Amino acid sequence: MDTPTIDFWIFVGSTYSYLSVMRIEEIAKAKGINFRWRPFSARSIMVEQNNIPFRGKPVKMNYMWRDIERRAQMYSLPVRLPAPYPLSEFDLANKVAIVGEDLDWGKAYIQATYRRWFQAGEEPGLEPNLSDSLREVGQRPEPIIEKARSEPIDRRYEQATQYAKSLGVFGSPTFVVNGEVFWGDDRLDDAVSWLRYGRIRSK
Amino acid sequence: MDTPTIDFWIFVGSTYSYLSVMRIEEIAKAKGINFRWRPFSARSIMVEQNNIPFRGKPVKMNYMWRDIERRAQMYSLPVRLPAPYPLSEFDLANKVAIVGEDLDWGKAYIQATYRRWFQAGEEPGLEPNLSDSLREVGQRPEPIIEKARSEPIDRRYEQATQYAKSLGVFGSPTFVVNGEVFWGDDRLDDAVSWLRYGRIRSK
Repeated sequence: MDTPTIDFWIFVGSTYSYLSVMRIEEIAKAKGINFRWRPFSARSIMVEQNNIPFRGKPVKMNYMWRDIERRAQMYSLPVRLPAPYPLSEFDLANKVAIVGEDLDWGKAYIQATYRRWFQAGEEPGLEPNLSDSLREVGQRPEPIIEKARSEPIDRRYEQATQYAKSLGVFGSPTFVVNGEVFWGDDRLDDAVSWLRYGRIRSK
Repeated sequence: MDTPTIDFWIFVGSTYSYLSVMRIEEIAKAKGINFRWRPFSARSIMVEQNNIPFRGKPVKMNYMWRDIERRAQMYSLPVRLPAPYPLSEFDLANKVAIVGEDLDWGKAYIQATYRRWFQAGEEPGLEPNLSDSLREVGQRPEPIIEKARSEPIDRRYEQATQYAKSLGVFGSPTFVVNGEVFWGDDRLDDAVSWLRYGRIRSK
């Protein structure tokens, strides 16, 4: 029998996704489930849906950093905040993730680039984060970055985004379980519960 | 010694606040803590801060109803969704809560009006919800509603809102513990943990 699977829609550029990216594999192991990491452009869906969570909203933005800081402490994850935000080269950062999507280094690249972003203040999609993250996962940066800029990868990125949108995904991180959409790191437990019991169970 | 207290900033008009309004007293009892219910105009702060969570965002709005439905089931709370939204007379609904703020029926009115809103589809601030909720908590509607429309209550509503804003509150429900701001029903546990331990503990 296949390992039960949750689709993990991830956009490198989402702040709260740091928490999920860093803790999801541990949950996978502990619960005996599998997460399929699916990079996509949450941003293009959000622009289209006029969904602007933090830009021009300094009070909410400050709250977001504090909330992430407190929850990172809860999960024993190091953070240096505020991290650079918004990113300037989010599309390239995500297209590199698309190149690695079905390869053994895909997840590890996303983890590496998030770690540099949230722990060292280096933007994903820019140097040195981009090449260092690829090297860390055993890849030569130049050919991967060249491929990430190619037409076929652009098309896959766009297709993934359209598919996410068709499922009702509108932000990152999002977990999809048998058609049920769970948005936000704080719904990761709900998604796991849904996979097991078809409903959310109280902790 | 005083019972440890968390300020519960509540705006009758916020959808997710239904979950907190219905379960918070049980938490208070179980944990031996006190919540001070503080009605305010989250909406005027949100308008000022250009923070529009759902209007003109149908995908996010649909998700919100589904998310509330799932979490209401987790908490064994009945719901009939979607409930009317946004409310047309939210200010009156909240000013009545201000009238009752320091009286023994204040919380119970908010619970009663939310129950009618989320379980029977009747808008707070409109009849029959308004008068029925007041009668349910032992009050004659006419004098309370007249007082709610008075200048002194308007001033208290405005003052509460300005004070909330000065604390960094920007939405409802919000829990404030020793100056720490926790926004959202899904941060209620975090706030309780903060009160006890000065940090969030993993469940």
